[in-house]
Amino acid sequence: MDGRELEDGEVCVKMLAAPINPSDINRIEGTYPMRPTVPAVGGTEGVGVVVAVTPGVRNLTIDDWVIPSHPHLGTWATHIAKEEGAWCKVGQDVPLEYAATISVNPCTALRMLTDFVDLEAGDVVVQNGATSMVGQCVIQLAHLRKIQTVNLVRDRSGVDEVKARLSSLGAEHVFTEEELGKLDMKNFLKEIGAGAKLGLNCVGGSTATAVMKLLGEGGTLVTYGGMSKKPIKLATGPLIFKDIQLRGFWLGKWKTKHSNEDFAAMTKYLLELVRDDKLRYITEKVPFEDFNHALDKAMGKHGSAPKQVLVFK
Amino acid sequence: MDGRELEDGEVCVKMLAAPINPSDINRIEGTYPMRPTVPAVGGTEGVGVVVAVTPGVRNLTIDDWVIPSHPHLGTWATHIAKEEGAWCKVGQDVPLEYAATISVNPCTALRMLTDFVDLEAGDVVVQNGATSMVGQCVIQLAHLRKIQTVNLVRDRSGVDEVKARLSSLGAEHVFTEEELGKLDMKNFLKEIGAGAKLGLNCVGGSTATAVMKLLGEGGTLVTYGGMSKKPIKLATGPLIFKDIQLRGFWLGKWKTKHSNEDFAAMTKYLLELVRDDKLRYITEKVPFEDFNHALDKAMGKHGSAPKQVLVFK
Repeated sequence: MDGRELEDGEVCVKMLAAPINPSDINRIEGTYPMRPTVPAVGGTEGVGVVVAVTPGVRNLTIDDWVIPSHPHLGTWATHIAKEEGAWCKVGQDVPLEYAATISVNPCTALRMLTDFVDLEAGDVVVQNGATSMVGQCVIQLAHLRKIQTVNLVRDRSGVDEVKARLSSLGAEHVFTEEELGKLDMKNFLKEIGAGAKLGLNCVGGSTATAVMKLLGEGGTLVTYGGMSKKPIKLATGPLIFKDIQLRGFWLGKWKTKHSNEDFAAMTKYLLELVRDDKLRYITEKVPFEDFNHALDKAMGKHGSAPKQVLVFK
Repeated sequence: MDGRELEDGEVCVKMLAAPINPSDINRIEGTYPMRPTVPAVGGTEGVGVVVAVTPGVRNLTIDDWVIPSHPHLGTWATHIAKEEGAWCKVGQDVPLEYAATISVNPCTALRMLTDFVDLEAGDVVVQNGATSMVGQCVIQLAHLRKIQTVNLVRDRSGVDEVKARLSSLGAEHVFTEEELGKLDMKNFLKEIGAGAKLGLNCVGGSTATAVMKLLGEGGTLVTYGGMSKKPIKLATGPLIFKDIQLRGFWLGKWKTKHSNEDFAAMTKYLLELVRDDKLRYITEKVPFEDFNHALDKAMGKHGSAPKQVLVFK
């Protein structure tokens, strides 16, 4: 907070919690296509409490919980002063860490399951990076609609535990890439009904190829990340003869085409699922003072780690 | 011809000419996904003349020129007996070699320019393999609609002649891959108006990547061949942040979704363009006796060669 007076129409929000997302790290690394003017504050989502309002403010009052009305830069801060429209009020009936993390990853999962292909009960979705927050949300949002998921996870120590956890969220099938390679693919595709209609890829490289192999005729692969930093290798045959499509998803682009009201409705729906215990995911709350350690964990320097959520005093 | 009697409703067609297409070769090699029961006759398109009809035949008479009503196997034959509906009558006001080659490559070019993105005058299409028959048709069909084309060709002896020929068909820009690499891409994209809406790929490998680089925001790459037999390498960034889409096109699939009437209307339109000298492409007529030599040429064993069209006595 720069200590300036609030302008009329602005509210001052004391931040309560904000996560470290992969895209936040990419922004700092300079590998994200949109670059802020530096110096800049990191973080694009989080939850805060209104601590001051100005006379022109109509829909927010002191003690309201708010999240950014669309993901924007600068949530790793103790206080933020912005016009009322930059905020979206949320209920206080969900844990802090869910309100802080609802607007990027769960929204991405919901949109990808909604905007690309018409999915009906019994249809199949296949994804890599299934332990990511998006991956966990995909499993549960699909399960709610009786859509089966086939989930690929990295081979790692404790992989059985990981599988059990994803199964408990509603995952029908969980494989490591190696297990998938040994599978009788023809039989498995028959078992799940002629292949997946939708594939979701946040990894790239051979893991993206593995997802594509599980797509059925006319299936769509949606890429929303490239964590391995390896390109997708794509044979021409499946494009031509199997009518496979490749698309990409970026929530930032979605936001430019939709109103704040659309965004508010989406986060409200997702937070209601959280409140009703139909959507859950693993986070680790970290005091803001331990930022450096949390950043290391978020960057994978200590192996697999849950989503790091900074908590402000 | 197996010497059998015609069944009622059938016509007997004496073939006049039939081309050797890459997909014909792939079928023989066994690399095409649909495999005929062997022994089988090659060739999927061509033109013939009706030499015998049966009482049940209503719309064809002796001396009519006909092409298969959709590409089907067995046109490398002197005579074919099939039911009337397997044939589509065509006018005799175009050269034989055009009637023989209208139903695969020109149709593919037309569909790809029509079915994937809405193109308006001034829009840009980029393609590799621009000297192929599809490539030549794309240039002219685009030119008719005032759509600019950017064309990539292999570096080869006589490349200047090739460029001049494509320009004479209406190509605005023709580059070898090497020339494209040296281009000031940012300026060039500005010059052609923010990049191509549609890219067409029949090669794969680095040449597919070159096409993708010329796509603008939201552009679509349509793959219809993989002549280099190399996969497409696809970075995840352009999918996510530039909203690039990858699709495939296969005329065989199109046919399963459309009627013989749709196909007849399409070939009629294209043959009218030929008659009006608005669509032309290079072919080489070869007597059927020289089949082996023509096949070698079609397989590229003698360098670049025009489309080989077998002519029957």
